[in-house]
Amino acid sequence: MTHFKSVGVIGKHRSPQVAPVLNALCRHLAELDRNVLVDTYSADLVDEPVSFVTRAELAKRCDLVVVVGGDGTLLSAARELAPAGVPLLGVNQGRLGFMVDVTPEDMRESLAAIFRGEYLREDRLLLRCRILRNGKPEQSTLAVNDVVIRNQAAIRMVEFETWIEGEFISQHRADGFIIASPTGSTAYALSGGGPVVHPSLDALALVPICPHTLSDRPIVVSASQAVRIVLGGHEGSRVMLTCDGQTSEILQPGDAVEVSRAEWPLSLIHPKNYSYFNLLRNKLHWGRGPAQRTPG
Amino acid sequence: MTHFKSVGVIGKHRSPQVAPVLNALCRHLAELDRNVLVDTYSADLVDEPVSFVTRAELAKRCDLVVVVGGDGTLLSAARELAPAGVPLLGVNQGRLGFMVDVTPEDMRESLAAIFRGEYLREDRLLLRCRILRNGKPEQSTLAVNDVVIRNQAAIRMVEFETWIEGEFISQHRADGFIIASPTGSTAYALSGGGPVVHPSLDALALVPICPHTLSDRPIVVSASQAVRIVLGGHEGSRVMLTCDGQTSEILQPGDAVEVSRAEWPLSLIHPKNYSYFNLLRNKLHWGRGPAQRTPG
Amino acid sequence: MTHFKSVGVIGKHRSPQVAPVLNALCRHLAELDRNVLVDTYSADLVDEPVSFVTRAELAKRCDLVVVVGGDGTLLSAARELAPAGVPLLGVNQGRLGFMVDVTPEDMRESLAAIFRGEYLREDRLLLRCRILRNGKPEQSTLAVNDVVIRNQAAIRMVEFETWIEGEFISQHRADGFIIASPTGSTAYALSGGGPVVHPSLDALALVPICPHTLSDRPIVVSASQAVRIVLGGHEGSRVMLTCDGQTSEILQPGDAVEVSRAEWPLSLIHPKNYSYFNLLRNKLHWGRGPAQRTPG
Amino acid sequence: MTHFKSVGVIGKHRSPQVAPVLNALCRHLAELDRNVLVDTYSADLVDEPVSFVTRAELAKRCDLVVVVGGDGTLLSAARELAPAGVPLLGVNQGRLGFMVDVTPEDMRESLAAIFRGEYLREDRLLLRCRILRNGKPEQSTLAVNDVVIRNQAAIRMVEFETWIEGEFISQHRADGFIIASPTGSTAYALSGGGPVVHPSLDALALVPICPHTLSDRPIVVSASQAVRIVLGGHEGSRVMLTCDGQTSEILQPGDAVEVSRAEWPLSLIHPKNYSYFNLLRNKLHWGRGPAQRTPG
Repeated sequence: MTHFKSVGVIGKHRSPQVAPVLNALCRHLAELDRNVLVDTYSADLVDEPVSFVTRAELAKRCDLVVVVGGDGTLLSAARELAPAGVPLLGVNQGRLGFMVDVTPEDMRESLAAIFRGEYLREDRLLLRCRILRNGKPEQSTLAVNDVVIRNQAAIRMVEFETWIEGEFISQHRADGFIIASPTGSTAYALSGGGPVVHPSLDALALVPICPHTLSDRPIVVSASQAVRIVLGGHEGSRVMLTCDGQTSEILQPGDAVEVSRAEWPLSLIHPKNYSYFNLLRNKLHWGRGPAQRTPG
Repeated sequence: MTHFKSVGVIGKHRSPQVAPVLNALCRHLAELDRNVLVDTYSADLVDEPVSFVTRAELAKRCDLVVVVGGDGTLLSAARELAPAGVPLLGVNQGRLGFMVDVTPEDMRESLAAIFRGEYLREDRLLLRCRILRNGKPEQSTLAVNDVVIRNQAAIRMVEFETWIEGEFISQHRADGFIIASPTGSTAYALSGGGPVVHPSLDALALVPICPHTLSDRPIVVSASQAVRIVLGGHEGSRVMLTCDGQTSEILQPGDAVEVSRAEWPLSLIHPKNYSYFNLLRNKLHWGRGPAQRTPG
Repeated sequence: MTHFKSVGVIGKHRSPQVAPVLNALCRHLAELDRNVLVDTYSADLVDEPVSFVTRAELAKRCDLVVVVGGDGTLLSAARELAPAGVPLLGVNQGRLGFMVDVTPEDMRESLAAIFRGEYLREDRLLLRCRILRNGKPEQSTLAVNDVVIRNQAAIRMVEFETWIEGEFISQHRADGFIIASPTGSTAYALSGGGPVVHPSLDALALVPICPHTLSDRPIVVSASQAVRIVLGGHEGSRVMLTCDGQTSEILQPGDAVEVSRAEWPLSLIHPKNYSYFNLLRNKLHWGRGPAQRTPG
Repeated sequence: MTHFKSVGVIGKHRSPQVAPVLNALCRHLAELDRNVLVDTYSADLVDEPVSFVTRAELAKRCDLVVVVGGDGTLLSAARELAPAGVPLLGVNQGRLGFMVDVTPEDMRESLAAIFRGEYLREDRLLLRCRILRNGKPEQSTLAVNDVVIRNQAAIRMVEFETWIEGEFISQHRADGFIIASPTGSTAYALSGGGPVVHPSLDALALVPICPHTLSDRPIVVSASQAVRIVLGGHEGSRVMLTCDGQTSEILQPGDAVEVSRAEWPLSLIHPKNYSYFNLLRNKLHWGRGPAQRTPG
């Protein structure tokens, strides 16, 4: 059985420093006998004899897409490629990310092993976010990490209500509100006081940002129900809706935002020795490994 | 169809003030044509012509057990009755609890409705806790809310490692560690900085108590895997294991504690109008209800 | 000795609902034989035969200014009147505030007592905030509660450095930073995770907003040294400086913001039975009073 | 002028690994022409020809005491020597501490500079802690970091009231309560959610441990007033009073604990290049130094 015959390549946007890794990656893939398709956005960085195609083409034609950059690059690629079901592999550039977990040094060996079938495939929950204005759904967008509703800098408080599948949760006065996937629980939501939520859970973390009421605490709910945030009035001010910190939209008083699990997950490919908690320990500086190799 | 033909009654232990509610409850049950069996511990408080039986008998013979008291009374009853699959209904005495959600005033009407089949049955995850000493499992106990490992007052830090199903999570130095069910997430774990976890989630909240490392944050993991806490050395000091704040055991250096989902859930019976978030709003003083009856 | 012969009156801006209290206040003051000067902004709300003058005139001519409204009204009046050394008395409209601690019901009696010399005078630290652009000081403003530097909604992180009197504190990546006076420690800074700082302390609370590094915790420093926040680059984004949530300014990359104790304090007049902690218990819902009247 | 003619030496108790540093220290001091007096507890670790005296003698005869070990060793020495006004210098063994800020490598050079008069002398607030039982003061003890009142592991909540100089603060239900000096604000109090309080502030941090009420937040108050904690009843349970995590006492229901600033400070001697925030950055892993050498 052949694993991942056609492999796409996406590099961090406008970052000449990823060029050496991108070119090495293309060479490795060719040596490992893969069809290599490179994102047109990275065309000027790649000197190898590869085909350049749009992301839409990558989505159609690839069995795997390797993303070179930071978590931000992977977030953006994921929103575009996940609907097509293409799995992603992240190679970090510079420093370890939560999702770009292969180092450039290990890249060649990791790819060889993965193409022999030695890998872990992990499905991560994706968020779908819809604005409802005057009761009617507007466009919907995807998010890997989080959907964030937040006030502009100069205005202290947004007032809003939260509901889950028709059941009222609470009224809030806060700087804003984060609805995070398990993947996003270690991103902005963690800075806001939310818990780490393991990616194997089908759950959403609801985290108020600087809430006025001190008992307005983070809540973890099932992702099988849609969460709805209904804005109160906010005269003369602006409230923003942001997905993954990358796409944003101005909300109007009375708008509702509905966040639910998207129809498809995001598939990540990891080397066999991948450990979620190992990554967490690294990123959160939790210190040393276990005293023993197996639990006491 | 007849709902809940034989009904058990348990009152808060050594609390004469529950006597009026207990007696009223027994009368209502008789009027509603139920077989009434009362916990022998409450015998001296009940003047009605009922049978008094042990909790073991209640577990065998009842279709429903009504618990009168606070959450603590229900926790204790639940650990004894849940293994037999008997559902519980909580009537609060004094003030609203998270699980004793029927008031004495509404008790009669609520029971009549429940016996007509108008009720919600909710299964709550129960925890099983095992000590492993010298690698061998000691006795195991149940917990509804939480399993807590904590140092004695005079000693600052316990050192321990956490594992989940053979994967190392982290090393910790802290006053202790809480493994909470969703039900327990609103109890001690909340005071320790943990999130609210909705009872519909099959998850555990892992909450370090006053951890030395500031990034040692609460983690929510799937309950389908066992969590293991392995104690380091702690010369001359005592570390306690406590279930629901009600049963406790002294741990020894090197002991491991394994917490997993118990084989059976705890079944709670609620009136039809029960709302988890309504209870939360009340208990956490979140203030008013929604501005509108339905989400925006 | 006559206390507070000329008394100014300021009402909440554009709030017809304060009219009854404003008029009653003017009557009480006349009956208590005071010269009454009313803020021209409140002119259309007052029917009593009083003089209407600008706030600048109030500052010059009054021995006391009574502010009717919420804490926000008092904040705004304080920034204008404190430089002249005029003490303020706050009468709340609607609900108790941290600084508007006299109720309309108690207003008459409280004023009579205060005019007999039965009052507490409390000096609160005021903040002075200066922007330094290209190394040169721009205009400076006052703040009673806090100086807040924060990113716009759509941008995750601001990078900045903090210094105190030439000593480097730290680098930060966060949504923003709050420099709060003790008075402001119970306002926005508390929502951001800061401590309550008693108003008798000559101290500033430095509170990062949603910091990226989890150990980036609130710090309380002496107010006798100036705190400086130096912005890093933030391409294409906007960072705002806000004083008391009421005045705001757009900052530029490389700007420094210096916050120090203003030359004069804000003087508040309280009834004799004023208790700071009593107010806190009320506002933070800390529950009941002491079991005993005096400490055990 | 001669600085610090007679120098005492205290080593970490029962720690053979400090022997090399202790002996090197004694040699350096002799070379630098100091009278060297060594704590009798460290006698078996020191081979140099020095005099061994009790700590009481050290307190009487030394102009400076050098402590070799961790912060714990310095805490213990400080409680014994501070009343005599002897300043302390801390040399860390193993890893940097908050108060043992000279490394063994820098020790010789630091001492030479200090004896030339190149040093900073810093006074740190010391705490005095008194138990009042049946209204009568029992023995009193000193603390450098903190006075902690905490329940035993098996019991969830202690009920107590807090007062400051006769003014009621609040009722609490919690695992316990920390009264920390600025020095102690970076120790246990930080794990409990308290702020960092700069040592130049004459203040106490009051930090409830795992409080039942979520708005029961840390408070920073002036150290010029005594804080009193009055225990409620706690049947059948034990509550401990601990100073610096090193001395402890069992409290009884109804006991009051009074914490105030001690009559004398603790004097610390630092090398000229000492920076409090540099230490904090190191200990809290705040990352890199400033981008620029001077504030923007």
